[in-house]
Amino acid sequence: MSIVNQLKFDKDGLIPAIVQDHQTGELLMVAYMNKEAVERSLSDGRAWYWSRSRRQYWLKGESSGHFQHIKGVYVDCDADALLLKVEQVGGACHTGFRSCFFRRVEGDELREVGDKVFDPHEKY
Amino acid sequence: MSIVNQLKFDKDGLIPAIVQDHQTGELLMVAYMNKEAVERSLSDGRAWYWSRSRRQYWLKGESSGHFQHIKGVYVDCDADALLLKVEQVGGACHTGFRSCFFRRVEGDELREVGDKVFDPHEKY
Repeated sequence: MSIVNQLKFDKDGLIPAIVQDHQTGELLMVAYMNKEAVERSLSDGRAWYWSRSRRQYWLKGESSGHFQHIKGVYVDCDADALLLKVEQVGGACHTGFRSCFFRRVEGDELREVGDKVFDPHEKY
Repeated sequence: MSIVNQLKFDKDGLIPAIVQDHQTGELLMVAYMNKEAVERSLSDGRAWYWSRSRRQYWLKGESSGHFQHIKGVYVDCDADALLLKVEQVGGACHTGFRSCFFRRVEGDELREVGDKVFDPHEKY
């Protein structure tokens, strides 16, 4: 049975994909896939998502060059979440940070703690 | 402004929380929080979730002893996902594996690759 038929998609037909650097373990981002995006990712070897805001397929890196080369795909116990271990070109975050999780909760504040790896004005 | 008011909860009032071992970087699980669960987690220092299936608050570890002691909370660029870096007591997964992501996609197969750290029959 194909992998996609073993996954549980939510009522919108989506499954969250958590993206981690395959070497450092750094958490890079979370995005969403539908069945077609999972299939494209598995066959292409680069991460494809479904953009909930733009309502279209999204090859990560298509506009920025910051592709995610997939080194491993893992499925959780409930089969309703995916983990992608990737080689991230450049940064994962459109803000220029390597990881989208560049803000840490400190009391009532969010403090920037991540590494900025590119200037978003030059990329987008 | 309180942290919870800076977060974007989805139409069901939930935000995904990705849980990572604070020392090894191992991805442990994904669960969901509502505002109250975020507040309880931040004040208690242990991870609380909202169980979508049981429709109740869930202190991770309450029945198993496998608490998650929070070492850091991070917010992503869109403020619609959280990363918790935790000290995980025992295993995160109810199946006995340390991580819920214990299956790797290999062709059309899911192969178990994780570490089993406890016998679920003795815990639940």
